[in-house]
Amino acid sequence: MIEKKDLRLQDIGEFALLERLAETLGSAGRGAGKGVIRGIGDDAAVLQNSPGTRLLACCDMMIEGKHFDLSYFSPWQLGWKSLAINLSDIAAMGGRPRWALISMGLRPDLRVSFVEEIYAGIAELAERFGVTIVGGDTCSSAEQLVIDVCLLGEAYRTEVSYRSAASEGDLILVTGKIGSAAAGLAYMREDAKDDLKIEGLDELLRAHLEPVPRIEEAAVLTKSGLVGAMNDLSDGLASELHEIAQASGCGARIWADRLPISPATILMADQTGADPQHWALFGGEDYELLLTIPGGKGSPLKARKLGRSLMKKTGTPLNFIGRILPASYSVEIVQPDEKIEPLGAKGYDHFK
Amino acid sequence: MIEKKDLRLQDIGEFALLERLAETLGSAGRGAGKGVIRGIGDDAAVLQNSPGTRLLACCDMMIEGKHFDLSYFSPWQLGWKSLAINLSDIAAMGGRPRWALISMGLRPDLRVSFVEEIYAGIAELAERFGVTIVGGDTCSSAEQLVIDVCLLGEAYRTEVSYRSAASEGDLILVTGKIGSAAAGLAYMREDAKDDLKIEGLDELLRAHLEPVPRIEEAAVLTKSGLVGAMNDLSDGLASELHEIAQASGCGARIWADRLPISPATILMADQTGADPQHWALFGGEDYELLLTIPGGKGSPLKARKLGRSLMKKTGTPLNFIGRILPASYSVEIVQPDEKIEPLGAKGYDHFK
Repeated sequence: MIEKKDLRLQDIGEFALLERLAETLGSAGRGAGKGVIRGIGDDAAVLQNSPGTRLLACCDMMIEGKHFDLSYFSPWQLGWKSLAINLSDIAAMGGRPRWALISMGLRPDLRVSFVEEIYAGIAELAERFGVTIVGGDTCSSAEQLVIDVCLLGEAYRTEVSYRSAASEGDLILVTGKIGSAAAGLAYMREDAKDDLKIEGLDELLRAHLEPVPRIEEAAVLTKSGLVGAMNDLSDGLASELHEIAQASGCGARIWADRLPISPATILMADQTGADPQHWALFGGEDYELLLTIPGGKGSPLKARKLGRSLMKKTGTPLNFIGRILPASYSVEIVQPDEKIEPLGAKGYDHFK
Repeated sequence: MIEKKDLRLQDIGEFALLERLAETLGSAGRGAGKGVIRGIGDDAAVLQNSPGTRLLACCDMMIEGKHFDLSYFSPWQLGWKSLAINLSDIAAMGGRPRWALISMGLRPDLRVSFVEEIYAGIAELAERFGVTIVGGDTCSSAEQLVIDVCLLGEAYRTEVSYRSAASEGDLILVTGKIGSAAAGLAYMREDAKDDLKIEGLDELLRAHLEPVPRIEEAAVLTKSGLVGAMNDLSDGLASELHEIAQASGCGARIWADRLPISPATILMADQTGADPQHWALFGGEDYELLLTIPGGKGSPLKARKLGRSLMKKTGTPLNFIGRILPASYSVEIVQPDEKIEPLGAKGYDHFK
């Protein structure tokens, strides 16, 4: 007899797996009162959005060996992150997340408990932000584990923040700490990690493995009525700032010494000979928000006030790191020695 | 210098690829006047559904080696089919398809023109049924090619057809021919295919490689006001009939000699020693519609009238193949010799 904990997908088959996963989802799979007229279990989900809202839709795929390595990702974390990166996109649009569809390609020899753990991670995050899992597709993949989440959200017209909405003179702000996810990844990939002493290491690991999407922060920021453009930092600060500048037809300048880099990231960089600024600018996978607010007289004061309000309501800091410039400028960074350098986009390229 | 046709993804990188794919999509990627406030190019798409409608959402993933084999699928067909199988789900709900998000995992050594062909197949089908591609994710996959499409549609409340809506006495109908996709797949996998002579072979190959989703047929059927339950036949007639019976708390009986199997399928079965009825019942991947209409006096006549109307408007036949029975019955099939046999679900199981 096979021990329950050693059951593999091939032992129980697709239909028994789907039943178990529905159980694992618990209330995150049940949509009563959450705009779900029919969730999992028909050819398509039937949903009802709030009157007057616009629908937001995004998807993000995670592939084993590229986006994650099972030697340091637990299945629970994998589930959590697969939803978190999509929640981050909805946050960056100023929206409220509502419904998700989960597609998974799984090796038949995976343990059933492993897949249940993935779903437990999804369920916990879904529950936290009021998301219902309304559908998906579960199929076999001979080689790699693949998870693709499609997330639907909604926002009123005036709440939506496009990346094209930055204007000359705007202040550039960023939530949280940047570079932490890259520092955490560097730690996990470090052969000599036992020799390192990083106070606050846990914060770096969580930034990579269990990022908390800035849904609550986006709600506070959006409610202030000040947000112009907004992006999440999935591709790194430099790349996302280029996207805002390009979409808005502007230039941008940030100050290196204003980048909010955590002490743990600096320790990690010091002990491995890495450059923390490089992680902060190009590392990516920091699921923080990059946004602009109107410039003009008194705007730095407004930024500080907004920061205090955000800290009070969510515990997340907000930092003023730069300014939107006229279109005649490119994207640049002022180094601590006051030297102005062009800032390349250099985001992560999947194929190079 | 690399010849243009030999360019690989790793030569041009992700950002140049995305630009080329946007060009390939053409008008299928532009949503002016189609409820698309912002399509590809921000953290999430911003959409506006028609007032009073319900939102339909589904996703279906195709993985190389499991759902398709590049030895017989052209990239164009792969793109076409990845959208077609989702359109089929929206059709089965009685809905109108509107917006799609495409996630792809691609090997860096794939030719750029190969990926453009995938998108050309998607674009052609999207255009045909008025779907706009509003987002997605393109990333690298070391081993297998993966495509996951999330499709959004809409329908008014009274148009939605749930699989739970069958009632005792209802007539069971099916569109088109069944078993064709399985026969086509068997042909492509046949080593001795050069020895076969199959008139109408093209119809079988197209059923597997380039299925035309029954969007127009679903619209005609829905408009008749007669549709009770409706499913598409992606998992095979037996499996889908079980789902309708189970969801509706009913039994069902179909007659073997009423199953609409095309002459080409019978030829293919004859020449390879296969059972055409088995393909029709368990083969799956026939993107036809299985539906019920109310029974009672004169209902077979109504079914014939509906069939004539469907044929006239779409060229697709509609066949009356069985009846919904009380819950005390299971799902059964009446063989040509009048023997009644239980019909197992035996759908495709991904993990067994």
